[in-house]
Amino acid sequence: MTTIEDRLAGTLAPALTPFKPDGSPCTRRFIEHCERLLEQDVGIVLFGTNSEAASMTVHEKRMLLDALREASGPPRRMMVGVGSCALAETVELTRAALDSGCYNVLTLPPYFFKGVSDEGLFRSVAQVIESIGDTRLRIYLYHIPAVSQVPFSVSLIARLLNAYPGAIAGIKDSSGDPIHTLDLISEFRGHNFDVFAGNETHLVDVMAAGAAGVISATANVNGAAIARLCNEWNTPAAPAEQAAANHLRAAFSKFPMIAAMKTAIADRLGDATWAQVRAPLIELDAGQQDALLSELTAAGCASPHEQRS
Amino acid sequence: MTTIEDRLAGTLAPALTPFKPDGSPCTRRFIEHCERLLEQDVGIVLFGTNSEAASMTVHEKRMLLDALREASGPPRRMMVGVGSCALAETVELTRAALDSGCYNVLTLPPYFFKGVSDEGLFRSVAQVIESIGDTRLRIYLYHIPAVSQVPFSVSLIARLLNAYPGAIAGIKDSSGDPIHTLDLISEFRGHNFDVFAGNETHLVDVMAAGAAGVISATANVNGAAIARLCNEWNTPAAPAEQAAANHLRAAFSKFPMIAAMKTAIADRLGDATWAQVRAPLIELDAGQQDALLSELTAAGCASPHEQRS
Repeated sequence: MTTIEDRLAGTLAPALTPFKPDGSPCTRRFIEHCERLLEQDVGIVLFGTNSEAASMTVHEKRMLLDALREASGPPRRMMVGVGSCALAETVELTRAALDSGCYNVLTLPPYFFKGVSDEGLFRSVAQVIESIGDTRLRIYLYHIPAVSQVPFSVSLIARLLNAYPGAIAGIKDSSGDPIHTLDLISEFRGHNFDVFAGNETHLVDVMAAGAAGVISATANVNGAAIARLCNEWNTPAAPAEQAAANHLRAAFSKFPMIAAMKTAIADRLGDATWAQVRAPLIELDAGQQDALLSELTAAGCASPHEQRS
Repeated sequence: MTTIEDRLAGTLAPALTPFKPDGSPCTRRFIEHCERLLEQDVGIVLFGTNSEAASMTVHEKRMLLDALREASGPPRRMMVGVGSCALAETVELTRAALDSGCYNVLTLPPYFFKGVSDEGLFRSVAQVIESIGDTRLRIYLYHIPAVSQVPFSVSLIARLLNAYPGAIAGIKDSSGDPIHTLDLISEFRGHNFDVFAGNETHLVDVMAAGAAGVISATANVNGAAIARLCNEWNTPAAPAEQAAANHLRAAFSKFPMIAAMKTAIADRLGDATWAQVRAPLIELDAGQQDALLSELTAAGCASPHEQRS
């Protein structure tokens, strides 16, 4: 297991956030989910896109962070998603992460205003680093232009790395374009800048090129297989494992992803409450649920009964 | 002056937020700015896009709301922007608005997730209405797809109006398309649904069609003229006033709008601190400042010296 002193590597999941019937985050289910991920050699991103982080208040995130710290001890293999449109919130959550012993944070750019300048984005990240003022801080940039609509350009990354070589630790590249991931690896090789693929669909190729690992939504539901593939990318088994992982991801991708993953977990655990999402997302309807579970069976997933027994 | 019992109408400005040199919101400059707007017959939208609302925490917004209430008494001609990605924050700010005596709120949809369903957006607005549970609440929908990337579709508006005819009060249409504004007016005529244009560029046309008024960024810097045009849209003077207002707006539009308006106010008041913006926005550089002030002079604005004297 990677220790707190090591650089993060391998497979991480943006941990899904289970809610109680009243809509509040469920710490018990959340902690159990995180423990299951760690047991599968999957690290944790608290408060990623697939965690519905944007739908939670800073107060709720701090509560989950504290609960996980209390239940599981000092953070192992974890980064905390801290990005907000309001930088004061990003600073507050970053400080909370550090206070809990987690020095790795993943940050979106401020994402409300569109078409902002690289200078403005540089100042946004710089303001967080300067406000925190702690040399232990390690920031991973979260590049997900299809959702945030605000990219971290290569020239902006270079400028940030030059100004803050200790604090800028890497990137999650959720551009959806494996060529872009390979370009980032090539561009910043030798700069202590760790590139994580944003999903596992080209994991063998990006690991061969020097990626640090992968941060993938589907690691919530297919963690052990993705972690094995990430560790064994250069073995004879890898091509078949890559194909199997992609096959399963494709099954989930036919549905709204977050609701689909929560449905699968609800089914596996026999716990319907797990399927809840927060507006503006909606749960799968009955027809979608049936179709998803059929897809998963066809994709070779063990049936719910087998997994529970 | 419109009283609290009346429906909002006429010209409103999304009030710019002045910051102190340390970056925190400046309540003194903010209150003075709001008072100047009201004196020009311009109502106030607290926490709109041009207020840099997304860059402020809920705590900062509540502080400004309280300060304005304390300084200026019960709100006159005001709506409070409450939209957040996290609905619990929208509810908190809506409740704070009601507690301060302002029953009109303007809400963005949750804007982080893209491509969400109308069902999910319906649930988002419904959740706010149900959580507040106060029949005095009047919600204006904020349609600004170029920024939020999440539209309020006509069919969604119809469904909301049908479910909550008392609470859904109108819309700010910042689609940038006057045809869309005219369509909304036509579609929802007779439903007690007030359509505000998102800027003044076609104000004569939309007022003639039955718009309730206009909520425009440039009302921060050209409020008296826009308010006069909005009141006198059917007089012989209107075409020339429309052309003049559009000419001034075009001058500002050559620059990043929020920074440009703050630069103009800083210049008028001889108060350089007013020019500050929060990251990810940046201030105009010296060349842009000079170019803007020249444009404004050419557009027929009184020179800073004349306005101050």
